[in-house]
Amino acid sequence: MKIVISGLGIIGGSFAKALKKYTDHYIIGINRSPAPLEAALSSGAIDEAGSENSLSEADILILGTFPDASIEFIKKNAGLIPKHCIVIDSAGIKTDICREISAVAKEYGFEFVGVHPMAGKEKNGFAAAEADLFCGASCIIIPGDASQGAVDKITALAQKIGFGRIVYSTPGEHDRMIAFTSQLPHVIACSYVMSPVCKKHPGFSAGSYRDVSRVAHINEKLWTELFIENKEPLIQELDILMENLSSIKSAVEKGNRSELEALLAKSRMIKEELGE
Amino acid sequence: MKIVISGLGIIGGSFAKALKKYTDHYIIGINRSPAPLEAALSSGAIDEAGSENSLSEADILILGTFPDASIEFIKKNAGLIPKHCIVIDSAGIKTDICREISAVAKEYGFEFVGVHPMAGKEKNGFAAAEADLFCGASCIIIPGDASQGAVDKITALAQKIGFGRIVYSTPGEHDRMIAFTSQLPHVIACSYVMSPVCKKHPGFSAGSYRDVSRVAHINEKLWTELFIENKEPLIQELDILMENLSSIKSAVEKGNRSELEALLAKSRMIKEELGE
Repeated sequence: MKIVISGLGIIGGSFAKALKKYTDHYIIGINRSPAPLEAALSSGAIDEAGSENSLSEADILILGTFPDASIEFIKKNAGLIPKHCIVIDSAGIKTDICREISAVAKEYGFEFVGVHPMAGKEKNGFAAAEADLFCGASCIIIPGDASQGAVDKITALAQKIGFGRIVYSTPGEHDRMIAFTSQLPHVIACSYVMSPVCKKHPGFSAGSYRDVSRVAHINEKLWTELFIENKEPLIQELDILMENLSSIKSAVEKGNRSELEALLAKSRMIKEELGE
Repeated sequence: MKIVISGLGIIGGSFAKALKKYTDHYIIGINRSPAPLEAALSSGAIDEAGSENSLSEADILILGTFPDASIEFIKKNAGLIPKHCIVIDSAGIKTDICREISAVAKEYGFEFVGVHPMAGKEKNGFAAAEADLFCGASCIIIPGDASQGAVDKITALAQKIGFGRIVYSTPGEHDRMIAFTSQLPHVIACSYVMSPVCKKHPGFSAGSYRDVSRVAHINEKLWTELFIENKEPLIQELDILMENLSSIKSAVEKGNRSELEALLAKSRMIKEELGE
């Protein structure tokens, strides 16, 4: 197959590298700026540096760009996408993007399958891309209006490039879960490091500082878009978190040992039930 | 030297194993329940299973018990501790324990040096102890009223068993920093996993869920004691965190992209300045 990847950042770049490592497909890269395209070509992550015109050859089109840019790209270039082509995105939220691109896909006759690879790093760009970024990770697939054949094809491809688990979901369920599993930890990390004592932590810290603060090394443009486009579920999770923080704070403030112990035991048991 | 370790949990047990691996000192273990003592003896982590009476032979006494229990143990057994002996604790907070044990040390003529090994796991007990638990970790030393000779001896011992960094501090500075670097991440983790969607996370989560939730597998008895005995600095950090969470929440709620982007950029820059 000919697979076109639009956007060679960490995710698009890792798709390219993984596809070259684990499959024999012909990979064409498209990127707004030329540097990542050149890097991808010279490192063998893509077979060809293409342009929008390459879309007419695509059996699969992977969107590695930010959600808004992906929607815009599809709206602008829908006429170039062959009817047999399967378009997948890689965005971290799904409600808007699935609705918008599915509508275009229906109008122009190609297929669209929502995809969220649950992998990443606190680094960005093609330089951070890795062939094995997805190894063992979960791949969330949002079938939406796509045919079973298209969903099966994407599932098989995801398994081939190393994903360890395929989960099928809806945009609503996905965005609700992601607000908790991914967006909330990013908000926490950013809020955490804003403490005035953070800069003095070296020597006074260990694993728990490192882990909770890790993703504060954030791509603010991407996450601003992701947070605001997933406003309702994220606010809901933030309210739940602040309520739980307040409960623990209140028990500490009162010096109520049995109340505090019961709250902490509840958390421990949730982790134990999950086998974590 | 003869080193007596009271309390063979993960920390006391790791001190025993590390001392046997990296030094030739003779190690005597004391533990309230017999099982960890037998396990330590049969695995070679200690040379001898002792009792309170062993204290009279101690050149160094390491307290591996909870803070309150450590204070109680010293008050009860101070008369058995030789004047040349250096007592160290391993508690996660320092104000109360340093004040209480320093007073006893002064009265009975032995030395006391506060020690906080910045290492641990989300598991407890002697079974979780490791000879290399402290390798590369930071060791916070609170000299207090101890002689320079005693502080130098403990410093040398800490370096010998693998600590990568020695930091000297005061009880007040220590407890303020630890409220941020260690206690707050534990409160966050416990509050985080209390979300009703937490149990459904498998398949929808990756590194950021794993990292922020890790220490929710908490020892609730220990941390209840640590939180309540460090009430003021912890409440201060919780208030700062909740204020920062609210700022991000407000920007998301208003859909104010530039405000949100500026907040996230601030966090990213803090991490970058720290070289993290």
